[in-house]
Amino acid sequence: MKSNPTILTDQITAVNLLKCYLDIRNHSVEICEPLEIEDYVVQPIVDVSPPKWHLGHTTWFFETFILEPNFPGYQVFDSHYNFVFNSYYETVGARVIRTDRGNLSRPSVADIYKYRKYVDEQMKNFLESGLMKKELEPLLELGLNHEQQHQELLLTDIKYILGHNPLFPAYKKEENSKNKFPKNSEMLKFYEGVYEIGFDEKGFCFDNELGRHKVYLNDFEISSELITNKEYLEFMEADGYLDFRYWHSEGWDWVKQKEAKSPLYWHLIDGKWMNYTLKGLQELNLNDAVCHINFYEASAFASWKGMRLPTEAEWEIASNHFEWGNRWEWTNSAYLPYPGFKKEAGAVGEYNGKFMVNQMVLRGASEATPLGHSRSTYRNFFQTNLKWQYTGIRLAR
Amino acid sequence: MKSNPTILTDQITAVNLLKCYLDIRNHSVEICEPLEIEDYVVQPIVDVSPPKWHLGHTTWFFETFILEPNFPGYQVFDSHYNFVFNSYYETVGARVIRTDRGNLSRPSVADIYKYRKYVDEQMKNFLESGLMKKELEPLLELGLNHEQQHQELLLTDIKYILGHNPLFPAYKKEENSKNKFPKNSEMLKFYEGVYEIGFDEKGFCFDNELGRHKVYLNDFEISSELITNKEYLEFMEADGYLDFRYWHSEGWDWVKQKEAKSPLYWHLIDGKWMNYTLKGLQELNLNDAVCHINFYEASAFASWKGMRLPTEAEWEIASNHFEWGNRWEWTNSAYLPYPGFKKEAGAVGEYNGKFMVNQMVLRGASEATPLGHSRSTYRNFFQTNLKWQYTGIRLAR
Amino acid sequence: MKSNPTILTDQITAVNLLKCYLDIRNHSVEICEPLEIEDYVVQPIVDVSPPKWHLGHTTWFFETFILEPNFPGYQVFDSHYNFVFNSYYETVGARVIRTDRGNLSRPSVADIYKYRKYVDEQMKNFLESGLMKKELEPLLELGLNHEQQHQELLLTDIKYILGHNPLFPAYKKEENSKNKFPKNSEMLKFYEGVYEIGFDEKGFCFDNELGRHKVYLNDFEISSELITNKEYLEFMEADGYLDFRYWHSEGWDWVKQKEAKSPLYWHLIDGKWMNYTLKGLQELNLNDAVCHINFYEASAFASWKGMRLPTEAEWEIASNHFEWGNRWEWTNSAYLPYPGFKKEAGAVGEYNGKFMVNQMVLRGASEATPLGHSRSTYRNFFQTNLKWQYTGIRLAR
Amino acid sequence: MKSNPTILTDQITAVNLLKCYLDIRNHSVEICEPLEIEDYVVQPIVDVSPPKWHLGHTTWFFETFILEPNFPGYQVFDSHYNFVFNSYYETVGARVIRTDRGNLSRPSVADIYKYRKYVDEQMKNFLESGLMKKELEPLLELGLNHEQQHQELLLTDIKYILGHNPLFPAYKKEENSKNKFPKNSEMLKFYEGVYEIGFDEKGFCFDNELGRHKVYLNDFEISSELITNKEYLEFMEADGYLDFRYWHSEGWDWVKQKEAKSPLYWHLIDGKWMNYTLKGLQELNLNDAVCHINFYEASAFASWKGMRLPTEAEWEIASNHFEWGNRWEWTNSAYLPYPGFKKEAGAVGEYNGKFMVNQMVLRGASEATPLGHSRSTYRNFFQTNLKWQYTGIRLAR
Repeated sequence: MKSNPTILTDQITAVNLLKCYLDIRNHSVEICEPLEIEDYVVQPIVDVSPPKWHLGHTTWFFETFILEPNFPGYQVFDSHYNFVFNSYYETVGARVIRTDRGNLSRPSVADIYKYRKYVDEQMKNFLESGLMKKELEPLLELGLNHEQQHQELLLTDIKYILGHNPLFPAYKKEENSKNKFPKNSEMLKFYEGVYEIGFDEKGFCFDNELGRHKVYLNDFEISSELITNKEYLEFMEADGYLDFRYWHSEGWDWVKQKEAKSPLYWHLIDGKWMNYTLKGLQELNLNDAVCHINFYEASAFASWKGMRLPTEAEWEIASNHFEWGNRWEWTNSAYLPYPGFKKEAGAVGEYNGKFMVNQMVLRGASEATPLGHSRSTYRNFFQTNLKWQYTGIRLAR
Repeated sequence: MKSNPTILTDQITAVNLLKCYLDIRNHSVEICEPLEIEDYVVQPIVDVSPPKWHLGHTTWFFETFILEPNFPGYQVFDSHYNFVFNSYYETVGARVIRTDRGNLSRPSVADIYKYRKYVDEQMKNFLESGLMKKELEPLLELGLNHEQQHQELLLTDIKYILGHNPLFPAYKKEENSKNKFPKNSEMLKFYEGVYEIGFDEKGFCFDNELGRHKVYLNDFEISSELITNKEYLEFMEADGYLDFRYWHSEGWDWVKQKEAKSPLYWHLIDGKWMNYTLKGLQELNLNDAVCHINFYEASAFASWKGMRLPTEAEWEIASNHFEWGNRWEWTNSAYLPYPGFKKEAGAVGEYNGKFMVNQMVLRGASEATPLGHSRSTYRNFFQTNLKWQYTGIRLAR
Repeated sequence: MKSNPTILTDQITAVNLLKCYLDIRNHSVEICEPLEIEDYVVQPIVDVSPPKWHLGHTTWFFETFILEPNFPGYQVFDSHYNFVFNSYYETVGARVIRTDRGNLSRPSVADIYKYRKYVDEQMKNFLESGLMKKELEPLLELGLNHEQQHQELLLTDIKYILGHNPLFPAYKKEENSKNKFPKNSEMLKFYEGVYEIGFDEKGFCFDNELGRHKVYLNDFEISSELITNKEYLEFMEADGYLDFRYWHSEGWDWVKQKEAKSPLYWHLIDGKWMNYTLKGLQELNLNDAVCHINFYEASAFASWKGMRLPTEAEWEIASNHFEWGNRWEWTNSAYLPYPGFKKEAGAVGEYNGKFMVNQMVLRGASEATPLGHSRSTYRNFFQTNLKWQYTGIRLAR
Repeated sequence: MKSNPTILTDQITAVNLLKCYLDIRNHSVEICEPLEIEDYVVQPIVDVSPPKWHLGHTTWFFETFILEPNFPGYQVFDSHYNFVFNSYYETVGARVIRTDRGNLSRPSVADIYKYRKYVDEQMKNFLESGLMKKELEPLLELGLNHEQQHQELLLTDIKYILGHNPLFPAYKKEENSKNKFPKNSEMLKFYEGVYEIGFDEKGFCFDNELGRHKVYLNDFEISSELITNKEYLEFMEADGYLDFRYWHSEGWDWVKQKEAKSPLYWHLIDGKWMNYTLKGLQELNLNDAVCHINFYEASAFASWKGMRLPTEAEWEIASNHFEWGNRWEWTNSAYLPYPGFKKEAGAVGEYNGKFMVNQMVLRGASEATPLGHSRSTYRNFFQTNLKWQYTGIRLAR
């Protein structure tokens, strides 16, 4: 459960930077261990990146922003890699068009692991050299948190790649012990008044969480538990996907264009709902929290229930009173800057601010989120049509 | 200036309903007087509707929601018209795909004017019949405000149709007396605290303005004047359209895809900036408020200035202290429900709520807004890429 | 019947050039007489042009190629019109993108009729001036044949515009007397040997018909009659649209993408097949020749019958032995140059040669073809997916 | 040179069927030897298939058409593979959408090699079992020729995959000894008369070559040599890509849309033309035959030279008089059935006939064509916009 996270982020700023670095870097490799080489290469949709690209891109971050400008005499591993592994940093030169990532058979997976090893050794040398200055720590922390974000994407993208293969290969054998099922739900009540949200603790956070500030909230109630597959199936069986009244206009267009009928990975086979999980195709578990729905679906479900999604402020204020961390929870808040938000200069300033339009905030974390990479002030965000993340629904009114 | 509007909206709820009805209905016809028949028919882009469609659609509203259910014995003018003139009301049956509106040569303009005349006569009979009940007044008011909204669209759509014709025909001869130029600007300062926004007066408002509620604002400053063409030209000449740092990621994609370089209707001809106006192609007036820019451009301009766009709450709180009404002013607030917002049942409930995703709020009014159709609580909204409305920029920090 | 055409083409080259000119020009106006002004303006699909564009474009041909270069002192009617009414002649400057034609409300229909009148008067002056040289006659003939081609397009485009309007307005009241129904069909047999095809008579023909040449044909049989609606309905009822075996691969993709089920203008209403004709929506006449099918459909029908479409050489050799002229008959010949074909220099050279790829030849003529504009050597051509012309099927084996 | 091919096709029909089978099957594996596993997986454009798909698909052919119906007790290797490796055979059930091939990481390359080994062993057992009947030989031959066709595609697809990677990896080290450069060219003259084309020898041919038949040819001349890179560069430097007069209308649209400027794989780097070859990026060899141009380009080049492309009949008649086999040579003949062509029943009948629309014939063979897989009667065909095959230009007039 993510409501009681480890304090890894505090460790990162301490003397044991190298250990943190190596632990986090190693976890990316662990995630890929069950893969065949072929699984590293493909990109079935534009939102999914090939696993080998994630491995290279996170490495490129440390090479480009830490080693090159700060470690005298550092030799770039391969000068072509900036072109291949830059993602969206317009400041650092021409980027590869995202849709092309799945066309690149080279660099090979073996070469990318060599690249990782090379950069990790150089980072070790650098961190032990005495050249690592205090001022660089926030950037290194950002790099590690960036890698943790890609660890979650690695897992969701691997699931998409395997889950859209006609052979439905399993990623792993064992159960995910992190996943807990929703219990009996109740509505938690909060009273109107001035509250404060935003990050103001020690340790790392992203720039979009900064600027703790007052908000005025009206009375609201929020559910203590996530919506289950059983409840979502009731919505489907009540023809929720056929009745425009529950949907945003844009959502309804999406339903019709995609002929949407269910969450991602659900397959009605011989009259029975099956669900592709990391363990392969399984019978749908009705008790589990519903997963892989987009904002339109979350909102339509809430509307069908006569309720609504919480705002991100409501969620943050209430979050001490319920367990969270199994699903990224759609809020009805648009992803916008907090009062006083300022983009930093340079490539790092492109991290968050430039995405603050036409996306919705998700709060919490998910079973795919790496340990230590969650906070109640964390602001995740995605476009309203996307459903390949571990997303879920909590209701408010 | 719209900060001191006429009290037409109060009149609507009074005994002189019929006069209000006829005045407003007549104004739509006046707007179309300068048109050739051919101008009524075309639809150059999906966002622009043919003028004849606006004339039919607003008439269909009164026929469908007032006359048919409430005036015994009312004969529908033509049973095919529901199919043709319904816009987005899913409740009232199959709608024409919006992109097809420009393909329909029939009903002819003459037939649509007959349709207007027929419905207006029946409305007169109905309003004088004693069958008009008090409970219906809000719906009638909604129909009249709906027609006023389409009057603004009529004008902006006509401008688009004529302004994208290679002959650049003029719509009218005389100057628009409503248009006033920005003066010397100063930053107006407001202090942090709990404020109230939303509609709570007598008279008409849309459902999205209802629910006056408290908001907590931080200290902010807001400009007393709109940005001028001169200032916007400085942004262009400083290569504002070539530097990704000022743009949202999505906005930058838009710039590159559309090869955007200037506001809509600006043409660089023989080294001189010309501007298509309702009077035809004219030399750009540097002193006028910049117009026809989209959210991405407004936001990029603000970023270049080291400022930002105001939120809609800031705008509403400050609006008594500056003149407004010449341009719809982009805010940095997403179009979302106010606390306690409830969609009404039936077709009328589709009016606003279903659009509350992926659009930004504009506040104020414009030179194209009909008299009496503006309030400081009015929430206009458009997608972030659209620029054919009379939109402008006011800065905050 | 077109197999015995009037000798208008001979007249054109005679002294009565002016009469021919005025007769043909006048016929374009006659075709448009039943139209409302609105009908002149719209362009429902890219292949259909607005009627007012046809009227302007054919006029522009005479202005640009005859009057401007040959009539000293000729004043262009409006210098913008070259931009608006040029179609595909790259030589004469920037053309309007075809898809944009339906967005242009100006020039108005009235202005285009003024344009026609002005050019016709100038042409009259020119033809009577003695400045008309013998060498110009082929170009003038080409202009008149070009206008006749557009007369057929005018009619097919008007049918498309009215036939895709939800009100299904009729174009005219009376029956088309030209239309004759297929009779009992027999297979006409021809023996192998060297034959000659191509134009070698007096009078006008297009450059693509020139170069009469020998071809070697094998034994073949060709049907004396066109396929009827009844026969085509049998194909539909035998699930011809559901069985890939009858279709080209490309045709099958077309069937699935468009969900094709029937010829254009057929509507299954309350279990009965209705057919939109120029007289409005009518019950399908089973005895009439099937119409408005594309090459894929013609070819699939033939395949279902165990036969094939004729080649254009077979058709031309056999054409004296059957009646033709009601439908453009799809052949299985690609539109390619005859031996020795040479493009002429200049804009006129763009007339035919540049289309000689990825189109199929149609032979004959149709009920929409103007009198005097048909020959057994005429090579019409369209892309394989198009069905808005008066196209039909004749079988061979 | 392909004009003197080995007589492998004769061998295939002889007693040594098994040796032929194993030799041809083995050659596909040889082609893939230089690949990294990642190279087997990607599909940069829809026309290119992943190498692993070619390996699986050709194997599936033997399993599905030979073993399953004819070898009692044969156990299918994996029942999912029909879904994955079927290409375009509508008869054999749902096919994978071609665009999706590049999304499939499984089956792994190792599994596909196991599949090949399994089927090859079963084929060996089958061929030695005495169950192989004479009537099956044509189908087996077809399967082997099918595999040879895919060997050429394997090579062209591998070149595309590596040649569109920013690292430009080489496929092999050594020169291709098959490639010979054009010499001094002369025009070979042929006289008009009745000729015969089509296959009528012993041995294998595809169904589209059958039906040797008479054609009438006019006098023509055809070049003894292919066009070189030097000559094509002259066309480019004479602004051939900027002058619409040389292009088909469709070709000109293609030039503008794709901003086409040169053959595929040509890169202007620091003012020097480089060419990606299987040995990596090399300086352009001006003496080599131009390669990787599409029909539009071949035709435009011919037009610029004041000549034309030969027809396929001209090519076949003349082919004894020149060397051919280095490039697939675009003809100006559309791919259409020969007189008397009949599609065979069943899946095998889908091999050729259904593609006989909107493609152009190429004659000869290329340096990528496997030994023994070429004949002067061979009819290759591609869409007019494609340029990833080893295509070249021979002129006629």
